[in-house]
Amino acid sequence: MTNSSRSIAVIGLGIMGCPMAVNLVKAGFDVIGYNRSEAKVQALVERGGRGASTIAEAVGTADVIMTVLPDSPDVEDVAEGHGGLFDSAKSGTLWIDSSTIRPDVSQRLASAARARGIRALDAPVSGGEPGAIEGTLSIMVGGEAADFEAAKPVLEAIGSTIVHVGPAGAGQTVKAANQLLVAGIIELVAEALVFVDAHGVDADAAIRVLSGGLAGNRILERKAASMVARVYEPGFRVDLHHKDLGILIAAAHEAGVAIPLGALAAQLMGALRAQGHGNLDHSALHLLVETLSGRRPT
Amino acid sequence: MTNSSRSIAVIGLGIMGCPMAVNLVKAGFDVIGYNRSEAKVQALVERGGRGASTIAEAVGTADVIMTVLPDSPDVEDVAEGHGGLFDSAKSGTLWIDSSTIRPDVSQRLASAARARGIRALDAPVSGGEPGAIEGTLSIMVGGEAADFEAAKPVLEAIGSTIVHVGPAGAGQTVKAANQLLVAGIIELVAEALVFVDAHGVDADAAIRVLSGGLAGNRILERKAASMVARVYEPGFRVDLHHKDLGILIAAAHEAGVAIPLGALAAQLMGALRAQGHGNLDHSALHLLVETLSGRRPT
Amino acid sequence: MTNSSRSIAVIGLGIMGCPMAVNLVKAGFDVIGYNRSEAKVQALVERGGRGASTIAEAVGTADVIMTVLPDSPDVEDVAEGHGGLFDSAKSGTLWIDSSTIRPDVSQRLASAARARGIRALDAPVSGGEPGAIEGTLSIMVGGEAADFEAAKPVLEAIGSTIVHVGPAGAGQTVKAANQLLVAGIIELVAEALVFVDAHGVDADAAIRVLSGGLAGNRILERKAASMVARVYEPGFRVDLHHKDLGILIAAAHEAGVAIPLGALAAQLMGALRAQGHGNLDHSALHLLVETLSGRRPT
Amino acid sequence: MTNSSRSIAVIGLGIMGCPMAVNLVKAGFDVIGYNRSEAKVQALVERGGRGASTIAEAVGTADVIMTVLPDSPDVEDVAEGHGGLFDSAKSGTLWIDSSTIRPDVSQRLASAARARGIRALDAPVSGGEPGAIEGTLSIMVGGEAADFEAAKPVLEAIGSTIVHVGPAGAGQTVKAANQLLVAGIIELVAEALVFVDAHGVDADAAIRVLSGGLAGNRILERKAASMVARVYEPGFRVDLHHKDLGILIAAAHEAGVAIPLGALAAQLMGALRAQGHGNLDHSALHLLVETLSGRRPT
Repeated sequence: MTNSSRSIAVIGLGIMGCPMAVNLVKAGFDVIGYNRSEAKVQALVERGGRGASTIAEAVGTADVIMTVLPDSPDVEDVAEGHGGLFDSAKSGTLWIDSSTIRPDVSQRLASAARARGIRALDAPVSGGEPGAIEGTLSIMVGGEAADFEAAKPVLEAIGSTIVHVGPAGAGQTVKAANQLLVAGIIELVAEALVFVDAHGVDADAAIRVLSGGLAGNRILERKAASMVARVYEPGFRVDLHHKDLGILIAAAHEAGVAIPLGALAAQLMGALRAQGHGNLDHSALHLLVETLSGRRPT
Repeated sequence: MTNSSRSIAVIGLGIMGCPMAVNLVKAGFDVIGYNRSEAKVQALVERGGRGASTIAEAVGTADVIMTVLPDSPDVEDVAEGHGGLFDSAKSGTLWIDSSTIRPDVSQRLASAARARGIRALDAPVSGGEPGAIEGTLSIMVGGEAADFEAAKPVLEAIGSTIVHVGPAGAGQTVKAANQLLVAGIIELVAEALVFVDAHGVDADAAIRVLSGGLAGNRILERKAASMVARVYEPGFRVDLHHKDLGILIAAAHEAGVAIPLGALAAQLMGALRAQGHGNLDHSALHLLVETLSGRRPT
Repeated sequence: MTNSSRSIAVIGLGIMGCPMAVNLVKAGFDVIGYNRSEAKVQALVERGGRGASTIAEAVGTADVIMTVLPDSPDVEDVAEGHGGLFDSAKSGTLWIDSSTIRPDVSQRLASAARARGIRALDAPVSGGEPGAIEGTLSIMVGGEAADFEAAKPVLEAIGSTIVHVGPAGAGQTVKAANQLLVAGIIELVAEALVFVDAHGVDADAAIRVLSGGLAGNRILERKAASMVARVYEPGFRVDLHHKDLGILIAAAHEAGVAIPLGALAAQLMGALRAQGHGNLDHSALHLLVETLSGRRPT
Repeated sequence: MTNSSRSIAVIGLGIMGCPMAVNLVKAGFDVIGYNRSEAKVQALVERGGRGASTIAEAVGTADVIMTVLPDSPDVEDVAEGHGGLFDSAKSGTLWIDSSTIRPDVSQRLASAARARGIRALDAPVSGGEPGAIEGTLSIMVGGEAADFEAAKPVLEAIGSTIVHVGPAGAGQTVKAANQLLVAGIIELVAEALVFVDAHGVDADAAIRVLSGGLAGNRILERKAASMVARVYEPGFRVDLHHKDLGILIAAAHEAGVAIPLGALAAQLMGALRAQGHGNLDHSALHLLVETLSGRRPT
């Protein structure tokens, strides 16, 4: 079966969902998109996709459904709501949920889907807007092995690192770990940058040399320069990272895993949001460290 | 002037100093090594260097002196002690200190050196034993621009990322920031690994997919697999990282920089050492997180 | 109306509920107790109360119902379950819930009760087993002012500090703050005790002098001596405090309040539990600090 | 020997030293005060003491010398400086240092004093300005037992809890623990107050009921009301507490004691200072938590 003979419904055409859908178009799939706000559907249509005005219309004839939504309740609504995915998808449809949601909700929805003859994978992604545009996302997939194999041609159109990490929900678990790492590393990079700046060291030189050693990491490569420039344009919003860290903290609490640095990073991300910076890029933790250190007009 | 016409004294031939000296030999320098324990000098001699039985003998005729010592007092002793570097080096000698020490001590020694006609650079390194052996260290250099230029052929024999970050002491400041990042990222990776393990996710799969996204970092690449295998062979010892974090915390306290994650990581590194694990690799923070989470026989 | 003419059902006769019921008996109330395990009912009967074998029997004729249960789902079961409080209580009954549960669940149940003609107060307590036995609990009450006035004679039989802190759920909010303070102060006292011990200072002398200054607090008075003796008998179990801190962290996350010390204390309490110490008194954070500091055979 | 026959020199007549000296006057001692700024000496003279214009004049004939100075270098200067205490005190004089300084400096100075025939005690205090005025300080004393006995009549004039905690330096160790507790409890109280406020709970009611239970502590009694009123008048300045926490962190690092909450509280106190609030009362951690939580105009 060639890609062009497969139809994919994409529900959720936001910062991540839209470029992912466009890459599916480019890979030859027949893509039909749905979004609550009509304008975003038009953007997809202009780039070669088709538009649907209801979820039922989008998923009714699709071989594959991909959801890219903000939070657990959104996915529950789309899946279980009246006229939603469960009501309207064909039996045998493959549902790939690329939203970042609670692992337990993901597991429950996968079971509910299966009971309706729908095969479900959780496949949250990392790599941000650039990764979504370039098709170089890292995709952590939970679900059955056969379904993972079936999903591969789809996932390869949007990502470059695609790993089956375990049964239903496992993708979300690894995504929670990803969000722990990303939040913590951003905060550490912010602390390091403010520290060297306070000692009069040139930040660009510091970033270059730190990147070359054991401290090297992707935040330093991709976000440190804009942090130094005090530009915090999303990218990935503080609001969403705050939500994800809530999932992480609750899951670690349940599982009895100590994540002291993760918990503290979550507090700082929450503080950033509480201060009204929810719409900034998560790299704005740099703003918080500068404020805490009195190195910014308040 | 070719490398072979320049003589370099290397003081301190430990885990880092010895392979660095060997790489200088390979680059054609005339290398004369000194170490308190004779055996380590022999190791260098067997690999093409010359040995000295006193600091004075090592540095007396050297064009360049490189020190690779554990802590601030060691460098003070070697530099200012009776029969030490300041007593014995020729005027005009270039002294490169690649130890990790307190920035303020580094500045003071650089001034004292200059008063004796010795040109001083602080040039701490990152990259660990593998980087020292492969000659791919990241080197953060503080001091005068002309001295940095003079030192370049030497530094290029041992490192691949070599950056002049500012005046005397600036190298140490950036090294402190490096140690903040490395300790923090190790702890975050440990928390992430224990978190996914507690949820039954395969760690190798998780490491692969996490490495591909925004969370990607060198600890994940180089140390995560051995952490999962519970092998914590140095590498870089907890004792030394604990010492470095003491420098960091004091410097941040003085400068008025808030480093909450760094301070917490320092507490955990200190705990690891207090528990008798000072000789393990710093990646043993994984052991600490597993112990904290009750996932290890105690 | 004298106390003896009022009948009170007490649901939940554990470490806290039993002595609270006994104090109600002593104050002259007609007390009828229910507990899932029969043995605990007998203990009350021996001390002057009456026993019931079902919730319905306990609450059917009561003027006041007091619930003292471990967690949110327990209270939901007792209130909303088949044959539970909502099914069996007389219209106009006053329901005092002294369990520590989620503020949002407390609010929801209060509304549901009111819809059935039952007046509801949330009235969690602090003071531990000694306070329950001595009748000196601190009681934080949420609900309507008139209901608070009606409940006063009952509450005065079990507590010595009784404060109406706001509408339904407000008692639980203040209790969450109480649990934040208690966990944090226990941890701080543990850190202080291990710190002075590591410096060879006599702990008893330290406790005495610390109690006299600005650092003085009830944990130091009541629990520090047994911590030094390494006796951690509940009292209040780690398991329950861990549960309460989960409520706190989620509520702070929702409300956008930064509680960095609270979040870190929650991680440590969780670690203690994960290590198998869930049945110890929460003062066992001292054990954790000693373990972290390598001052205890592991 | 009656109090009136003993002369006491008091060096350092600041917020703490002045009321302490006044209480010594009230107890009948012959008090001679010295301070760098003349005005403070006058304040003592007006209240019945005598003034000295040099340290030598103050201590030359004194039976007891009490120093109440800001930091380690100040005490070193007064003790070891030209014309200082060691140069000018009679042999056999009892020196009581009530400053808060590094335990190791305290030990070194005690040895140096002894070598000159001066008996030294470290006797830092807790209780703040109110405690100093009321003579109800808590005093933690390190040194020899005989010297402690000799000092008792003096200490009883200024404090109500007076405990000999160990040999030289032990008083400073316990004071460091005191500062850990006080900083941590202030931060916890701040978090609790902002948490209940964010949920619309009346802070005064919350303070009353929290004080009655296991969470009860002296910060809640003495400082919470002014924190709620956003009045942060010293009392004890952030600058000084920051200095003390630097001593604590270094001492814990040396001793290998894990103080995660203490270290985090130290970071927050440092942040407060870095933001320009060094002259506020340490209870201004409440301001920091409100700012972090976006509950204050920035």
